[in-house]
Amino acid sequence: MSKEPNKKRNRPAVAIQGEKGAFSELAARQLLGADPEIRPCERFADVFEALKAGSVEAAVIPIENTLHGSVHENYDHLLRYGMPIVGETNVRIVHNLIAPVGVSLTKVKRVFSHPVALNQCLDFLAANPKWERVLFYDTAGSVKMIVAEGLKDAAAIASSAAAENYGARILRRSIEDDRQNFTRFFLLGKLEPQNGKTPKKISAVFSTRNSPGALFRSLSALALRDISLAKIESRPLRGKPWEYLFYVDFLGDLGDVNVQNALGHLRETADTLTVLGCYPKA
Amino acid sequence: MSKEPNKKRNRPAVAIQGEKGAFSELAARQLLGADPEIRPCERFADVFEALKAGSVEAAVIPIENTLHGSVHENYDHLLRYGMPIVGETNVRIVHNLIAPVGVSLTKVKRVFSHPVALNQCLDFLAANPKWERVLFYDTAGSVKMIVAEGLKDAAAIASSAAAENYGARILRRSIEDDRQNFTRFFLLGKLEPQNGKTPKKISAVFSTRNSPGALFRSLSALALRDISLAKIESRPLRGKPWEYLFYVDFLGDLGDVNVQNALGHLRETADTLTVLGCYPKA
Repeated sequence: MSKEPNKKRNRPAVAIQGEKGAFSELAARQLLGADPEIRPCERFADVFEALKAGSVEAAVIPIENTLHGSVHENYDHLLRYGMPIVGETNVRIVHNLIAPVGVSLTKVKRVFSHPVALNQCLDFLAANPKWERVLFYDTAGSVKMIVAEGLKDAAAIASSAAAENYGARILRRSIEDDRQNFTRFFLLGKLEPQNGKTPKKISAVFSTRNSPGALFRSLSALALRDISLAKIESRPLRGKPWEYLFYVDFLGDLGDVNVQNALGHLRETADTLTVLGCYPKA
Repeated sequence: MSKEPNKKRNRPAVAIQGEKGAFSELAARQLLGADPEIRPCERFADVFEALKAGSVEAAVIPIENTLHGSVHENYDHLLRYGMPIVGETNVRIVHNLIAPVGVSLTKVKRVFSHPVALNQCLDFLAANPKWERVLFYDTAGSVKMIVAEGLKDAAAIASSAAAENYGARILRRSIEDDRQNFTRFFLLGKLEPQNGKTPKKISAVFSTRNSPGALFRSLSALALRDISLAKIESRPLRGKPWEYLFYVDFLGDLGDVNVQNALGHLRETADTLTVLGCYPKA
């Protein structure tokens, strides 16, 4: 009889791409509260596979960054795996220069990080032109590696959570070029996000018949009902060269009659339509 | 007096990303005729810089692939550099297993190529599970390297032009998983493409005020005039998180009154509008 409550108090297992301390872990904490059990995966496909296999209760994936654009691979996985989107959150990307304990700024000769992170700290790196920049597969993973290897001349660029997680020291905080740097993450699976309130957002994907005005007619299903389109993203339709899938995010709740009518109308004009999820707006 | 005609007979210098024998070279030949002088560049930004500096007369860049989607970096460069699009062509991507002369199929232990090319030949590679797959920065460059290094146990995946160019042998032709694999390329600069005929296509980019229905109203400028939208691509607007630029391709000629009216209407509804080029449809 007491098993159910205990189970509920257990830490939920959440798959992310990258090592512990990755920005996806920060997103998971924002979405689910302080202490989810993070399961690092090497590739995005592994994250979706873990969720599909039921070895985790949820997954957190990045979907777009305000400087770099969409994570297109994840758009493809969302449709392929059909795992429902149940939440979203935005994380401000703050990069830090991190080194093993005992390595001071003057000793640094090499800086490890993911290419995107190195690319977002060009002004800071330009001020230290002698440092060698070394590409690594993951931001948090680069901190893990320089600590594990005990490198005496190396630093890494990653989140402050990565420094904490691997017992490393932050040499310089917030070294990113542009502070308008946010990444939006989706929560997938069965868990409810902390911000379980209205207003809600819906994500869907549709394809159109390849005829003039087809996209315009499909978007009219939303626009004519004053439904606000937050985002549209096109992806190639496999097997049909030069035709596209359109991923849309719009404000609304699947319980609203207005939204139900819009989806009915969209189903009429589009060739295929899949609702990917309805979730509280970040 | 005879200098002008001579100059015209000179081979035009064309910048591409990647080594000689890259698919961009095939595109340049399709666009300009048999024998342009190819200037390999390491990065896409270098291609745009070369054209801007006037050290080449044209550039050829990939803009989208029917399996992988858009080359988003190049969309950003098109707007930043403002180099006019003057042509387009589609190249079918045929991958081949290529080895130095004297290396037969049974001797191959390692296969080098760009990650995208390796990823497009998974069925073929799965049939040879003992081969190590080694990531390289460029398809044609991987052929150049295995030949230059005289590797006795290595093959590369690249175009047949790369095999020809570096005096290597094709061990297996057309090893790609999916034959519906095309890449669309843009010709930028001052040269005229060979297919200088109608119908024409226009590429433009606009941003919208962040208000409900803004994209729909902008697309109405085309749809209400029966102008056929061939493609739409969204990119983040720098400095304005969660706002977007929309790149559109549509059929029409800048000389048509209908198109001029559409662009006038689009300028009214959009916040910014830039025409990137008008060119013969591939």
